[in-house]
Amino acid sequence: MTRMSEPEALRVTVGLERPYDVLIGPGILKGIGSLVPERRVALVTDSNVAPLHGSQLADRLALDGRDVELIIVEPGEASKSPATWAGIVERLAERGFGRDCVVIGLGGGMVTDLAGFVAATYLRGVAFCSVPTSLLGMVDAGVGGKTGINLRAGKNLAGAFWQPRFVAADVAVLASLPERQFRMGAAEFFKHALISSTGQLDLLDAGRFSARAAPADLAAWLATNIGVKAAIVAADEREAGVRTWLNYGHTLAHALESATNHELEHGEAVAYGILFASLISEARGYEDTVPYARRLLEFVRPAPLPRELELAPLLPFMARDKKNSASANRFVLLERPGSPVVVDNLTSGELESAWTRLIGHAPFREGAPL
Amino acid sequence: MTRMSEPEALRVTVGLERPYDVLIGPGILKGIGSLVPERRVALVTDSNVAPLHGSQLADRLALDGRDVELIIVEPGEASKSPATWAGIVERLAERGFGRDCVVIGLGGGMVTDLAGFVAATYLRGVAFCSVPTSLLGMVDAGVGGKTGINLRAGKNLAGAFWQPRFVAADVAVLASLPERQFRMGAAEFFKHALISSTGQLDLLDAGRFSARAAPADLAAWLATNIGVKAAIVAADEREAGVRTWLNYGHTLAHALESATNHELEHGEAVAYGILFASLISEARGYEDTVPYARRLLEFVRPAPLPRELELAPLLPFMARDKKNSASANRFVLLERPGSPVVVDNLTSGELESAWTRLIGHAPFREGAPL
Repeated sequence: MTRMSEPEALRVTVGLERPYDVLIGPGILKGIGSLVPERRVALVTDSNVAPLHGSQLADRLALDGRDVELIIVEPGEASKSPATWAGIVERLAERGFGRDCVVIGLGGGMVTDLAGFVAATYLRGVAFCSVPTSLLGMVDAGVGGKTGINLRAGKNLAGAFWQPRFVAADVAVLASLPERQFRMGAAEFFKHALISSTGQLDLLDAGRFSARAAPADLAAWLATNIGVKAAIVAADEREAGVRTWLNYGHTLAHALESATNHELEHGEAVAYGILFASLISEARGYEDTVPYARRLLEFVRPAPLPRELELAPLLPFMARDKKNSASANRFVLLERPGSPVVVDNLTSGELESAWTRLIGHAPFREGAPL
Repeated sequence: MTRMSEPEALRVTVGLERPYDVLIGPGILKGIGSLVPERRVALVTDSNVAPLHGSQLADRLALDGRDVELIIVEPGEASKSPATWAGIVERLAERGFGRDCVVIGLGGGMVTDLAGFVAATYLRGVAFCSVPTSLLGMVDAGVGGKTGINLRAGKNLAGAFWQPRFVAADVAVLASLPERQFRMGAAEFFKHALISSTGQLDLLDAGRFSARAAPADLAAWLATNIGVKAAIVAADEREAGVRTWLNYGHTLAHALESATNHELEHGEAVAYGILFASLISEARGYEDTVPYARRLLEFVRPAPLPRELELAPLLPFMARDKKNSASANRFVLLERPGSPVVVDNLTSGELESAWTRLIGHAPFREGAPL
């Protein structure tokens, strides 16, 4: 890490058995080469990010004498599949890449999850560097060592825990991507704000939260926000305890994504999921975060839910969520912001009631977009 | 482990961070249920083993109130593929299996490697129990936590380290399988004898080594032999040092398997590989183990090598062997039995010379089988 030359980079250390750093700041992407000693580099990205940043990075590494295999997948969740994974590991094997290679994942959460799973499984594990380009990737998928792919029955159902050597979050990249992508990441950002006491809830109300904010502000916000996840992951690497908190809003979210065949993006689904969890919490007499969840939904501006969507067909997906043991109705709720609680005793009545209220918000139904 | 009722089972503890036991003895298969607390069981086996032992075990577990998914794959290395792996994890997901399930691999090394990789990657890791039925599986694939599948470019090129909860080696099963399978396992058994000082080399000469030997003898031999691998694996879980010794005979073996499109079985290829390594060792002036390697080859009775096989097309496969960093000619040799040494400076002249001597042994060429 001492080879990193940009003095302005902020650093969040993820304190696992083998600790690693998240480097945050503008321009970090240009310095990746100095952080990667390996000669053979598999650079995984998608066809949205490749023309903006991927080809440049590949060229810089090649000029530096590296043997670079640039692997460009189609954008979208459909690429996080067993078939795409198999295609990449087959390609690395055909190129004769050995254990001394490194896999760099450059892109959103889809790319870093997929590239991480490639690194975790190629030759039973090679070095991995995570370079998230989306807000979602920076605050969520980049940190924690969760890698994986989707199966037909749901998201992230196959994968491995595999920690990156480092995560590099170049905040200057955020402004180069569609503004919609930034909004998609807001749900995870404010999920961290909701389950912690970092005082970042106000950022949403203040209207300052934007990809066009000053890079120094963006970097500082991200460092604080990523720190929430880093602290939880360090306390619970294998997801046996407090790490479940990070699942806030995600049980419904994963079900929505699966039921809509991933037409709903992750950030959109999480925004709905946070509102759903807030409605249940409020009905239980916990502190009312419903107004906040509604403002978050307005910020994220998700696609409307399909008009025909009912709760009943979502329930099997919720039961199948990998955080759930068997069919237990296990949910993360908030007693108040900063105080998550895991409940195991949700009734179908509570779920039905929250669902009815959720879809009662007309703006979220098809035909009446926000 | 206290629930294990058979007093006659021998036990080898693999002393990793999370230690686990290899249980060895006749009749252990019947007691598997008492060792597996999980209600949901994915039992992976192949269509050779299923009618002999798999369906019985599935029935016993089902009678015991378990929810058993019996997954039967085709026998042979072709099933150790990305496609088969994907099919199994998709099936478990469709069945709604959660993190509280267990995967049992019942079969030879192919099945336990494949089932282990399923366990390592389904929901980012679930419990795994390894129940090898072949000699090869018992002495090799069952122990060490290596799981994996083959890619087009070579064997075991994708996978993960994932330790089983236990390994159960029922020696009574060995006599139920074709005698040829036992011979295939002999190469790994005597590889352990060659790289250690356990005094098991004589078993080959004494002519007592057979699947029909007394079960108590078989169990004792296996416990000693598995102990060699267990000690090495415990000393080097992630394969950074002495674990390389287990690769004795395997660099050529993997190349032969890949070059013959897996027509040559692993045990056959390893027998050739051990002779190859012995020839190189002898030419270097190390203790001459060539006569022993030849006797092992006679015991294993491998299929003859294809008449047209040359060394040149094998070299890329040898360089691609995952134990090799890039293209280094890295080999495990024996200074003498019990004293492995890893050399990095093999010349192409040494390889050519050993190859010429190997194929000079007419019995190993097509048309002149042993």
